[in-house]
Amino acid sequence: MLCPTELSLADTIALLSRTPTAVNALLSGLSDVWTRSNEGDGTWSAFAIVGHLIDGERTDWMPRVRTILEHGETLPFDPFDRFAHLKENEGKSLQPLLDDFARLRIENLAALQMLNLRQEDLARQGKHPALGTVTLAQLLATWAVHDLTHLHQISRVMAHQYREAVGPWSAYLGVLHCNGHGGS
Amino acid sequence: MLCPTELSLADTIALLSRTPTAVNALLSGLSDVWTRSNEGDGTWSAFAIVGHLIDGERTDWMPRVRTILEHGETLPFDPFDRFAHLKENEGKSLQPLLDDFARLRIENLAALQMLNLRQEDLARQGKHPALGTVTLAQLLATWAVHDLTHLHQISRVMAHQYREAVGPWSAYLGVLHCNGHGGS
Repeated sequence: MLCPTELSLADTIALLSRTPTAVNALLSGLSDVWTRSNEGDGTWSAFAIVGHLIDGERTDWMPRVRTILEHGETLPFDPFDRFAHLKENEGKSLQPLLDDFARLRIENLAALQMLNLRQEDLARQGKHPALGTVTLAQLLATWAVHDLTHLHQISRVMAHQYREAVGPWSAYLGVLHCNGHGGS
Repeated sequence: MLCPTELSLADTIALLSRTPTAVNALLSGLSDVWTRSNEGDGTWSAFAIVGHLIDGERTDWMPRVRTILEHGETLPFDPFDRFAHLKENEGKSLQPLLDDFARLRIENLAALQMLNLRQEDLARQGKHPALGTVTLAQLLATWAVHDLTHLHQISRVMAHQYREAVGPWSAYLGVLHCNGHGGS
């Protein structure tokens, strides 16, 4: 495990650059059985999760990077609306969302690299509206782990669709015993 | 959720054909921080998980399909050695394993499609050495969910490497609160 001050920007960007491609490779062209089914009322399908990842690219990660660099702790981040996508993406099909996610991520990583952050910049601080003081390193690490938490969620939501179909093998399939840890 | 008898072979194959590409898109070219780190003694890295997925292609899924079709319940499946890869892949690099997984999956799905299974074949039964009677539909569903359980595991093992780096955001990142559900 890494200490916050040791965060490698290169490793973080390497992961961030790969997840949209991985999500597209997994979901593109799959039937609605896999992509539109959820885990029950009030839970998200893979389609909804991709919508949420897009919202993060539009309103969360890079705006917060800029808030830290421009305002430090004097201006709290705007809260992240975790549900905006549900209404916004009604009636859309999945592939345009997958393409939007990939395009926005490329644009955001290009913008991040244009900032030419130095290792010491990663210790700069901002204010999260609920969590309090956070660092730029923590924000960037969270961006990467947020991808992973939703990849984890996508795999679980999809596996749920075959929960009965696997029969007695359910006992051996850890993903079917994951309770979602509070939603993701 | 699907009942066992409703399993769609097309949907199952659609997922099985995508996971190796998704795993490659996620892991190819990443540093050892992401791919060689595990969750502690006796746990698997992403590298080890890919090795395990290869073992499944070589020794588990299609051999068991053939055992069901040729012997029904009269011949129990060979037990699946879940640890063979650990010794076999010592000293190897990741990309050849990712390529092996993709190639073996393509070969196995081609072999599966050559069997021209009809919907009624999916009810045919075999004998699992520990779980008892299982159906071909359950075996094929398990092959797909096994992919998802290990994608779930890969995302968790990778997230673990940034457990400290995310700081207070840990509270919001479900994948960091996943206990592994018995290893995967």
